Amino acid sequence: MGCSFMLVCMCFTLYVYPHLSSTAASGLENEVDGGSLYPEILRDEAVSRLYELGKVSDAEGYLERTFMSPASVRAGYLIRGWMEDAGLRTWIDKMGNVHGRADGSNPSAKALLIGSHLDTVIDAGMFDGSLGIVSAISALKALSVRGKLGRLVRPVEVIAFSDEEGVRFQSTFLGSAAIAGILPASALQYSDKSGSTVQEVLRSNSLDATEGNLHELKYDPESVWGYAEVHIEQGPVLERVGIPLGVVKGIAGQTRLKVTVRGTQGHAGTVPMSMRQDPMVAAAELIVLLENVCKHPEDFLSFDEHCKDSSVKSLAGSLVCTVGEISPWPSASNVIPGQVVFTVDIRAMDDMGREAIIYEYSKRMYHICDRRSVSCNLERKHDAGAVMCDPELTAQLKSSSQTALKKMANEFDGEVPILMSGAGHDAMAISHLTKVGMIFARCRGGISHSSKEHVLDDDVWAAGLAVLALLESDM
Amino acid sequence: MGCSFMLVCMCFTLYVYPHLSSTAASGLENEVDGGSLYPEILRDEAVSRLYELGKVSDAEGYLERTFMSPASVRAGYLIRGWMEDAGLRTWIDKMGNVHGRADGSNPSAKALLIGSHLDTVIDAGMFDGSLGIVSAISALKALSVRGKLGRLVRPVEVIAFSDEEGVRFQSTFLGSAAIAGILPASALQYSDKSGSTVQEVLRSNSLDATEGNLHELKYDPESVWGYAEVHIEQGPVLERVGIPLGVVKGIAGQTRLKVTVRGTQGHAGTVPMSMRQDPMVAAAELIVLLENVCKHPEDFLSFDEHCKDSSVKSLAGSLVCTVGEISPWPSASNVIPGQVVFTVDIRAMDDMGREAIIYEYSKRMYHICDRRSVSCNLERKHDAGAVMCDPELTAQLKSSSQTALKKMANEFDGEVPILMSGAGHDAMAISHLTKVGMIFARCRGGISHSSKEHVLDDDVWAAGLAVLALLESDM
Repeated sequence: MGCSFMLVCMCFTLYVYPHLSSTAASGLENEVDGGSLYPEILRDEAVSRLYELGKVSDAEGYLERTFMSPASVRAGYLIRGWMEDAGLRTWIDKMGNVHGRADGSNPSAKALLIGSHLDTVIDAGMFDGSLGIVSAISALKALSVRGKLGRLVRPVEVIAFSDEEGVRFQSTFLGSAAIAGILPASALQYSDKSGSTVQEVLRSNSLDATEGNLHELKYDPESVWGYAEVHIEQGPVLERVGIPLGVVKGIAGQTRLKVTVRGTQGHAGTVPMSMRQDPMVAAAELIVLLENVCKHPEDFLSFDEHCKDSSVKSLAGSLVCTVGEISPWPSASNVIPGQVVFTVDIRAMDDMGREAIIYEYSKRMYHICDRRSVSCNLERKHDAGAVMCDPELTAQLKSSSQTALKKMANEFDGEVPILMSGAGHDAMAISHLTKVGMIFARCRGGISHSSKEHVLDDDVWAAGLAVLALLESDM
Repeated sequence: MGCSFMLVCMCFTLYVYPHLSSTAASGLENEVDGGSLYPEILRDEAVSRLYELGKVSDAEGYLERTFMSPASVRAGYLIRGWMEDAGLRTWIDKMGNVHGRADGSNPSAKALLIGSHLDTVIDAGMFDGSLGIVSAISALKALSVRGKLGRLVRPVEVIAFSDEEGVRFQSTFLGSAAIAGILPASALQYSDKSGSTVQEVLRSNSLDATEGNLHELKYDPESVWGYAEVHIEQGPVLERVGIPLGVVKGIAGQTRLKVTVRGTQGHAGTVPMSMRQDPMVAAAELIVLLENVCKHPEDFLSFDEHCKDSSVKSLAGSLVCTVGEISPWPSASNVIPGQVVFTVDIRAMDDMGREAIIYEYSKRMYHICDRRSVSCNLERKHDAGAVMCDPELTAQLKSSSQTALKKMANEFDGEVPILMSGAGHDAMAISHLTKVGMIFARCRGGISHSSKEHVLDDDVWAAGLAVLALLESDM
């Protein structure tokens, strides 16, 4: 397989602004450029809502909200209430997405969508997804309380997407992909570990999505102006440069694989080592191989005249591969498993590089499985190409973020960093519908997908102010 | 660590008796040596009971009965009914073991115990454990219907042990170890995956086992004559030599370990490969290492003057190592796990060899964990030394098996094979109380711990006849 890797750059400017700390400008109520700081809405209430939403969980003692779980449904109603409190017209669509819309002065104009996801991973933090929803609602509420919603030059619609993490059905973007019109009808038949399908869990919540009506969820591209999303960075860059907000140049492409290894089930005490066809040891060898391939892609990729050493090195810098789930059957300590299933998550900034890695990995995988006399099956559960954000919208988000940071700390005169995202976001799905742009908010230690995830109260405030500045820039 | 391995021999005589096939002697009702063949009890009813018991499951579509699960409790009552039908006095003790006793002509004489286990692995076959219980009850019923129970020279007690597989609490012999008096009181606090303890699940079934009364379950060694157990072979030897029954010379020693690997949980898209402390890849490397150590112990063991090359080779022949369970946390495809737990099952005929392997494996394990900056913890969940069966009792069981096979096929004039057992059995625990002996019954393809496990109807009959011959030999 030939390859033509692009050089991947982490493009940000290393200005350090230690004065934009957690205490900067706290409590100020001064008006700058006609806008207020709204600390009671954009910081205090927003933070309190994030904590409230963070307690809506299906598990005791940690946060877990998967697609259409009881806690997800409760979270949806909570968010809908906040949307109504902000003066928005609300509804829940057939995929469980929660919508809140302000029509503004021209209801037939192309709408600005602002969204993020309400589902979480297992043992999640309370900001991943939720911050984007809460900051958008807060910004609209800030306009609403001043009676300014009607002055919006275009409709603004907040969407809380029902599935981005893909934990329950191992397929991300069930919500946003439906709105973008790229969700295959077959997705309704994906089943979770208990055997329930997407369609069944929707129906049990009175949402009647069918193969026949799924297309109705798709937005007409002519009705949409663009999509903006606020999200925690989930990486360490903003903390390192000491700036609360950044804007996103692009999002890494991602492939999720499900690998099934089948061997011969047997008694742990009676089958000699030399006679075993043990899928557990085969899976273990495949997991170690995956790490090797992704740590040192240069050792595994074939070269041709298009593929330079430097481009392979750049792939090595952005490529990340993860096995997060593994499940043997029948799963007893004294039984050689008959089958082991594990997941593979591969991400890279360069789509061709990612494909080349999958090709080289699967080739070696089948070789190992042959040698071990086990059967291996590799299933692609999810593919998302790398997405570049819209330059114009990104410039607007950058300007809005800069306005927000200036409001909070008058002496701020630098530029907000421009980052690449290693994590997938609903913006990837929505990019099939309209131009997209993202703002990242700083998170402590770059940690996410963990109960240790944390965003400073003032950074929540900065995010809300940036959305507000975006909305006000068009008035 | 020094080592002093014994040469391990698979001791059996390779007489092949193709005439002892599944159809041999079927339906015969002739009396030989004063004993009957009782096909309606020892074959037809016994087989029908095995099928009935095989349907008592906690799962739909496959067999699963773990310690004190609802299906285990139902199975216990079913077995108790069959014991009463055989004229036995019955009770269920505080660890859920089901007892049925015939006092015979001398109720104060030392008792012969005959038992096996009523629990199963997940996706189990219907003969493992059950065959030993059903064949013992059937043999006593055969005596009972002829009014001969009172002629037994000593009490005979059938015990259906509540836990041998150890699936639920990852610790085998909860039932038989209590009766042997070797179950530590702390075992009552072992907890299953849902957090319930042994004591709690017993209490929910009105069985009040406490640290204070556990010792009451222990049998007085002075009150016991010996212990016999019929079990499926779970290996291929009897099928290969074409003989339905064999007797057991000894049982391999076994250690069960729980390995916990802790790393740093994180987002699958944002933590560079070089910065990861991923417990999943570490666990995978440890699983591959385990296979290497157990396939080629000679490459890993240190030698000293006591340790000869030939003895290491013999260890290599009997050593088997298995990882049957693995469980990551939090178990989502887009999260680098924070923790991975897996089980290790190690068996060998030679106890010192097994210890040497555990020592060498753990030494290398900690080295790998250090290199990967993850923390590893190795917990010994279960240890059972190799057990040699009592030569005298084994000779009696051999003679009884031979009598049974002769009854079924008059021309049988060879010897039943003498085998070693790679699988653990309740006899291992009971060997701490009294002398033990075992009869193995042939199973198809040597397969067990699988729904494909199968014993021919006539081999079930042969097993019952062998127990009957043992009982009659003392009358």
